[in-house]
This record gives sequence, C-alpha cells and structure tokens, in this order.
Amino acid sequence: MSETRPTTAEIAADFTALWRAGEFRAAGEKYWADGVVSIEPHVQAGGTDAECRGIEAVREKNLRWCSTHGIEDLSLDGPFVTGDHFALFVDMLIAHAGRRRPHSEIAVFAVRDGRIVEERFFYE
Amino acid sequence: MSETRPTTAEIAADFTALWRAGEFRAAGEKYWADGVVSIEPHVQAGGTDAECRGIEAVREKNLRWCSTHGIEDLSLDGPFVTGDHFALFVDMLIAHAGRRRPHSEIAVFAVRDGRIVEERFFYE
Repeated sequence: MSETRPTTAEIAADFTALWRAGEFRAAGEKYWADGVVSIEPHVQAGGTDAECRGIEAVREKNLRWCSTHGIEDLSLDGPFVTGDHFALFVDMLIAHAGRRRPHSEIAVFAVRDGRIVEERFFYE
Repeated sequence: MSETRPTTAEIAADFTALWRAGEFRAAGEKYWADGVVSIEPHVQAGGTDAECRGIEAVREKNLRWCSTHGIEDLSLDGPFVTGDHFALFVDMLIAHAGRRRPHSEIAVFAVRDGRIVEERFFYE
C-alpha cells in the first residue's frame, strides 16, 4: 500500500464535503473505482438497471438522473466510518417533472485502494 | 395497514434497545419476518453462507455464531431511520477461541409490515 494513500475516513470526509457542496458528480469522478458497482433498491425511472457495474455504466446512470432531477434542501448526516465502509444519511427534496417530493436514503460506500468500489442505496 | 402497527422508527428504537441490552437473539425473534434475508459480506467462519434466507436459516446462523463467540464492550451509534430502513453503527470486541478482536460494522435493516425483512452487514 502506498504511504500516501488516503484512509477510508479521509475519503469519507472529502466525499461528503463534495456532496454537501452539491458536487455529486465531481465526488464520483474523484473516487469511483473503474470497477465500481452502484446498487439501487429497484429499477430506476427511465429504465436504468437497479445494479450498474463499471464506471461507464455508473457515470451514465448519474448523468441521466441529474439531467432530469434537481436536488434541493440537501441534509446529510455522517459520514459514519467502520473499517473499509462509510455511510451517509441523506434527506433532500427531489425536483422532477414540475414537482418536489421529499426523499430519504441510507447510502453505504465500500472503499478499496483509495477508491469507492461499491455504493449501495437504501430507500423505499 | 393496522392502526396499531408500529412505525419503522418505533421498531428501530425497540430493536436497538434490545441490542444495547445484549439481547440480540430476542431482538431477532421479536422482529424477524418469516421470510427475512440476512446478508454478510462473505461466507462465515464455520461455513455459513453469506446470504441466509428465511427465519429458520437466519435463526440457525445466529445460534451457531452465538454459541462460539462472545460480545464485549458493545457500542452502538443509532438507530438512523430513513423511510422503511434503519441503520446501526456497531463497535465491539468479539471473544472467540480464547482471543479478543475489535470489530466494527454497519448494519442496515429493511422493515415491512412491522417486521425486519432484510438485515445486511457491512464490514471488512
């Protein structure tokens, strides 16, 4: 392991700071591993698979979602770090198709070799 | 839905109180759904599958683990509730085979109809 490789706690802090600043895509681009797997509870509106494997698929999902949805009143609790995982508790308003709806989720990230190798989202 | 059915927040609070009291099995027996799925990051020592489906399999995993491991210095952060999920951050010492080792994990629970239908544990 490189001595300069950031710890999971350091990655979690920086990633969360980027999310707090609304820089979701920049956070992903900075930390997603090439083989990152992104897992939602179910198929996404627009037909995106619940599970996206690889940075290209995850990037595409992210772009598709962000191009049609706005995030307002973002509130984050965390990060909570245990070993090579960290979690965030997310509350927000999602603006989509002229409406706003509240959304809460638990996001759990797995880190390996300084990169996020898995992100898993829990919500209804 | 029954008017008397407890909310996810109420279940999370009671379940966590039982864990804090060291009553892990009682917490499970009180809240596991018949079809509960329990998911570990990898196959367990002793050969238990990473994913156990159904209350009998989950009960058996729990009994097998508890009969050979002790939990000391348990520290819980949470519960954090979002919609139909709640999460706990767990630190403990695991006593096993004459040794003690620290263990940290994130535990995420999915609730449906007043019962835990999925428990998923994240650790190294």
